[in-house]
Amino acid sequence: MNRPIRYAMVGGGQGAFIGGVHRKAMALDGQYRMVAGALASTPEKARASGRELGLADDRNHADWRALMEDELRRDPAERAELVCIVTPNHLHHPIAMAFVQAGFHVACDKPLVQTGAQARELAQAVARSGRVFGVTYNYTGYPMVRQAREMVRAGELGELRKVVVEYHQGWLSRAEEATGNKQAAWRADPARGGPGGAIGDIGSHAENLVSTVTGLVVEQLCADIGALVPGRVVDDDDAVLLRFRGGARGVLTSSQVMAGVENGLRLRVSGTQGTLEWLQEEPNRLLHSPIDGPPRVLTRGAPWLCEAARRACRLPPGHPEGFLEAFANVYLGIAAAIRAHAEGRMPDRLEADFPGIGDGVRGIAFLEAVLASGESQAKWTPVGA
Amino acid sequence: MNRPIRYAMVGGGQGAFIGGVHRKAMALDGQYRMVAGALASTPEKARASGRELGLADDRNHADWRALMEDELRRDPAERAELVCIVTPNHLHHPIAMAFVQAGFHVACDKPLVQTGAQARELAQAVARSGRVFGVTYNYTGYPMVRQAREMVRAGELGELRKVVVEYHQGWLSRAEEATGNKQAAWRADPARGGPGGAIGDIGSHAENLVSTVTGLVVEQLCADIGALVPGRVVDDDDAVLLRFRGGARGVLTSSQVMAGVENGLRLRVSGTQGTLEWLQEEPNRLLHSPIDGPPRVLTRGAPWLCEAARRACRLPPGHPEGFLEAFANVYLGIAAAIRAHAEGRMPDRLEADFPGIGDGVRGIAFLEAVLASGESQAKWTPVGA
Amino acid sequence: MNRPIRYAMVGGGQGAFIGGVHRKAMALDGQYRMVAGALASTPEKARASGRELGLADDRNHADWRALMEDELRRDPAERAELVCIVTPNHLHHPIAMAFVQAGFHVACDKPLVQTGAQARELAQAVARSGRVFGVTYNYTGYPMVRQAREMVRAGELGELRKVVVEYHQGWLSRAEEATGNKQAAWRADPARGGPGGAIGDIGSHAENLVSTVTGLVVEQLCADIGALVPGRVVDDDDAVLLRFRGGARGVLTSSQVMAGVENGLRLRVSGTQGTLEWLQEEPNRLLHSPIDGPPRVLTRGAPWLCEAARRACRLPPGHPEGFLEAFANVYLGIAAAIRAHAEGRMPDRLEADFPGIGDGVRGIAFLEAVLASGESQAKWTPVGA
Amino acid sequence: MNRPIRYAMVGGGQGAFIGGVHRKAMALDGQYRMVAGALASTPEKARASGRELGLADDRNHADWRALMEDELRRDPAERAELVCIVTPNHLHHPIAMAFVQAGFHVACDKPLVQTGAQARELAQAVARSGRVFGVTYNYTGYPMVRQAREMVRAGELGELRKVVVEYHQGWLSRAEEATGNKQAAWRADPARGGPGGAIGDIGSHAENLVSTVTGLVVEQLCADIGALVPGRVVDDDDAVLLRFRGGARGVLTSSQVMAGVENGLRLRVSGTQGTLEWLQEEPNRLLHSPIDGPPRVLTRGAPWLCEAARRACRLPPGHPEGFLEAFANVYLGIAAAIRAHAEGRMPDRLEADFPGIGDGVRGIAFLEAVLASGESQAKWTPVGA
Repeated sequence: MNRPIRYAMVGGGQGAFIGGVHRKAMALDGQYRMVAGALASTPEKARASGRELGLADDRNHADWRALMEDELRRDPAERAELVCIVTPNHLHHPIAMAFVQAGFHVACDKPLVQTGAQARELAQAVARSGRVFGVTYNYTGYPMVRQAREMVRAGELGELRKVVVEYHQGWLSRAEEATGNKQAAWRADPARGGPGGAIGDIGSHAENLVSTVTGLVVEQLCADIGALVPGRVVDDDDAVLLRFRGGARGVLTSSQVMAGVENGLRLRVSGTQGTLEWLQEEPNRLLHSPIDGPPRVLTRGAPWLCEAARRACRLPPGHPEGFLEAFANVYLGIAAAIRAHAEGRMPDRLEADFPGIGDGVRGIAFLEAVLASGESQAKWTPVGA
Repeated sequence: MNRPIRYAMVGGGQGAFIGGVHRKAMALDGQYRMVAGALASTPEKARASGRELGLADDRNHADWRALMEDELRRDPAERAELVCIVTPNHLHHPIAMAFVQAGFHVACDKPLVQTGAQARELAQAVARSGRVFGVTYNYTGYPMVRQAREMVRAGELGELRKVVVEYHQGWLSRAEEATGNKQAAWRADPARGGPGGAIGDIGSHAENLVSTVTGLVVEQLCADIGALVPGRVVDDDDAVLLRFRGGARGVLTSSQVMAGVENGLRLRVSGTQGTLEWLQEEPNRLLHSPIDGPPRVLTRGAPWLCEAARRACRLPPGHPEGFLEAFANVYLGIAAAIRAHAEGRMPDRLEADFPGIGDGVRGIAFLEAVLASGESQAKWTPVGA
Repeated sequence: MNRPIRYAMVGGGQGAFIGGVHRKAMALDGQYRMVAGALASTPEKARASGRELGLADDRNHADWRALMEDELRRDPAERAELVCIVTPNHLHHPIAMAFVQAGFHVACDKPLVQTGAQARELAQAVARSGRVFGVTYNYTGYPMVRQAREMVRAGELGELRKVVVEYHQGWLSRAEEATGNKQAAWRADPARGGPGGAIGDIGSHAENLVSTVTGLVVEQLCADIGALVPGRVVDDDDAVLLRFRGGARGVLTSSQVMAGVENGLRLRVSGTQGTLEWLQEEPNRLLHSPIDGPPRVLTRGAPWLCEAARRACRLPPGHPEGFLEAFANVYLGIAAAIRAHAEGRMPDRLEADFPGIGDGVRGIAFLEAVLASGESQAKWTPVGA
Repeated sequence: MNRPIRYAMVGGGQGAFIGGVHRKAMALDGQYRMVAGALASTPEKARASGRELGLADDRNHADWRALMEDELRRDPAERAELVCIVTPNHLHHPIAMAFVQAGFHVACDKPLVQTGAQARELAQAVARSGRVFGVTYNYTGYPMVRQAREMVRAGELGELRKVVVEYHQGWLSRAEEATGNKQAAWRADPARGGPGGAIGDIGSHAENLVSTVTGLVVEQLCADIGALVPGRVVDDDDAVLLRFRGGARGVLTSSQVMAGVENGLRLRVSGTQGTLEWLQEEPNRLLHSPIDGPPRVLTRGAPWLCEAARRACRLPPGHPEGFLEAFANVYLGIAAAIRAHAEGRMPDRLEADFPGIGDGVRGIAFLEAVLASGESQAKWTPVGA
């Protein structure tokens, strides 16, 4: 095993949810060590969060600018190599720009930024820097999602025709944002969560899942989005018709108001030769229904999986891996890319298997098109490049 | 048990599929006896089909007009009381009109007719006749669908917000209509199957399922329909955004080109208090996820089901009932209505629990709106009354 | 379609459960017509039951002896060809002996009789008579059970090693027999239901399922049986270790006191090349897990099933068939055998595919061995031939 | 978060499976830091393994005695506090005895030792030492297993009647031990794996699952155990009838030759008021079927779970946790107990929620009884205290 990669975290302090997920995911495989942080939006809370996580006082900062300055002052041998950005969405852009331009590798939560212009600007900065940039669309880190992707690439479904993707939750069925739920509050506030509500929070995962598995490009879409909970100012329920380049069609639904539903991300992809179905809540299996034979239940860890899937497994079949392991797979890819960068070489596709700046930019273009379509009376809205 | 009701069948002879289903469904509970028929589109085939089914020679007719004339000549004590119409769709209208106007009770397959004008004309004729008219939307005959309907009516989901219905098949993934498959051929021929392909064949069931369970009224819709199999002249893949009166939203997908998928009719209905999910391929269970407690698996036959569901069960829990039993439930309702008519009384709601002329008319209005929207560049198309 | 076979029923009147199941199963495919009966244990109830079912007065009898005498007096052209025996278990033997000896074909519910001596006597009578004799072990009528049987026969599992069969219910978790439940009362009364409780009622089905699918012969067994509900005088919970001829092993559990469980009959069979799993509550699928590839979900109706399974299907894949259809498949086999008998020919194996007198005899030998083992302190009890 | 606990590992080097699982499980929550090891059975391999894992040279030992001596020489502030024993089974006893007697806290893999005498000796040593001793029966670390345990304790199932537990795998369907599979080789060698094959390797987990969830005590048992793969010298397929103190009954099966089966550990527990079912391959749900209402699907993370289950969850409902997280839960309990020990206080039941020396001793008593019964012709074999 290699020396752990040093990382700093921005956001993810006390009361946050996703920061702890990132830390556990990074800890799981022993590839990372947290050395610094600016963990919350107020100096007091940031410092308290850092102390709780065992950060040294001199690397436990009140804000991300202080963190960056301090890191840049330090010897490269102790400096954080990677910066993880897990703040509310509206802060992704300035922080990511700053750290990229300063020469750090960056892992940023999704959605990448808030506008297409920001996304393009950041992509250019990343390209100029030559640094590693990951976007933590964690669901594509599941082994069976990678299996699906490789099967599509290998032509096992034939020519793709139809995609049905849904991401259904119920936890925002009430106006949680009005009752002190911190997770709900920033998501429901356009100033912090961005103009998209459910579409940005979970529709973005659905888009990434489709794009990753199918490789299809959405050319135009037709969206009906809105809020079903009275008083909510961002969308909480979305349905989007998709037309892909080349003639395939799709439907994407994302909803956070299907009361009683937990975390129902489900993908179905059909081609001329068969259909794949994957459900996040039972992530260790992938159902493959070929046109001319019985459905096959592909399971995580099985020796007949493709290499991309097998590399993403830690345990034998029947020993379930879950959300954290999938998240950790994204970070394994980022680690491999960082190590390859240090060695001055290009990592191969399966080694550096993680969503990058391109995924982030595409996600924002999709988000903008959905929001535009939601406002439009025209049936079809084109999706920007 | 009452004396069996005498029935005649139009269509459903050799090589047909659904006619035999109707006959088995009617046989199951001993409520019906076939006495006459005009079973196919050519005299020879009609007669051969009738002989095979044991029809007396003098009641085994070459065409439906001969059947009707003969029946009208007979003593009411031996005359067919009910006429079942199971021809290709384009013949539903003239045959149903004729038998209704002649005073017969009628059971007609779906979709009812081919245009809204035909539907309204037929509805008026039914109203004038006072006879029983059933439309065999068989999927709403499942006990757990009735359970879902009653739970919605009783307010157990609160105010409805979201409906996701899908009807996915794969059996038309190839151009079966070009290879001698009789079932595929008439469905893919607009002259016989009507202008709607998948939307008429299976989308119609999905619409009826939604309307029956939720009671919601579709006000406007946005459809993307088309053929994904090269050369096909009717739609084989559809996606429809729905806006219901009162603000609820929905998505309906129907596809017959999801290769490897069997008969995937699935309904999800969410309201402020919870979500119901039902899957036709596992019809004996209904998942109820309330907002404030664990999901409950409601199973057919359980003593805690509502009366409408319990009446639709023949067997104790754990003894699966299937497609034929659900179909038979539609015919049990029709039989109850015919008996009530004979007794000069109105049957109660749960006794005569079957889809009627109103369901048929609404289904055609929906179908017309979907086809219009498919041609339109406007986002929303209103659905006629 | 052939002329329906005329049948008489003994037992199955008002308040009975299984008689109505037999009648529906026989009605489904139009192969049978009920012409006579002696439907209950008291003359009044027998007559009332027959009237309700539309029996002619002169063929609606007070007891089975009167029925037999009357039928024998009648012209063969109107005489019942088949007699269905659906009485409580203790009456199977005298009634079956009488009708077999009188030259009728017989269908008898399981368990066949109450002792091995009775079973052998009846088997000899059947052999002498040359008539058709079916035992309605209905669960082996499911298409996917037949698929499993044929796969084993064809060697797709390799050499068999292990069988795990369970039949779990919960409906006798309370002392229902003490509270007026008629179904519970006769089963819990050794004088009517026989010395075996759960083992006779449902363990018998599990045994038949194993024997039918695997063809294995139980050589010795070790049973722990008893009553877990206080006051019950027959077993309600059983566990049996099985040793098969040739070295394979098995475990059979049958319980009627697993509170909240419906009708959980599940079979798993493993051989050197793979494992099959079938669950009665989801009967349209059979899971095949080969040793060297992903599990395959075999579904009812699929074109790649074996002929024995395809013949047992009425509907295409995805259109569920259930308990009644499986029951009806047993009666289709009996009908085919009766017709072949009338034509003076031997039906082929797949035509006359139903459990016969041999299954009944084997079932009683198993039952006797389990009851003996339950009383024994020796580990292994041999199973009689 | 507290300072990480320092640990040393014995066994678990290159080519081992379970050692890496322990390390990942300990890493996940940041509660542990590996400081020393003696990782393999030969000095060269031990050292190479330690280097790969980043151990300092002076704490990377050739054998466990050297490790122990070195640690004892060190300052308590840097000394390993916990020793994890993940060697083949035959080494558990001497190593555990030595470290316990030397005053270390110990986590030992299962089965604890190889004989009842060893187990009792070790238990006495642990009692004398006052140190923390965990046995990594990891499956009882799943949140939904803890939920089941608490529901039983709270009486939600009423009086327990029946337990059915199975642990089925297929990976030893061939003589893998003869083909260079290291995992298979030591398990199939009584000198290293112990006299029990499947019963020790996986039956032990099944026993622990039953004992943990139900609290029932096995009084006597009847076992049929043996090898179904030719040439194998330890059992690979077991079936055990259980009689519990108080009258409940059970069946335990463990098999490693059900070809095509992955890791099928399933528990069903029935009482007078209902039944629980849990399946390790879908560990995030627990099915509760009460006697008087519909089954309830309890899911990991839900707010209505008991405290013991909620404490064992890292993520919200619908975000699957798996095998590693359950394993990590065992280590969280051990960490809590070690910290409480350091603070001189007794941890509460839910804080120190992990299998201890008592579980290990009971497991060995069970194992001995099963092996004795397997050799016996008497039906029932008592289980030692």
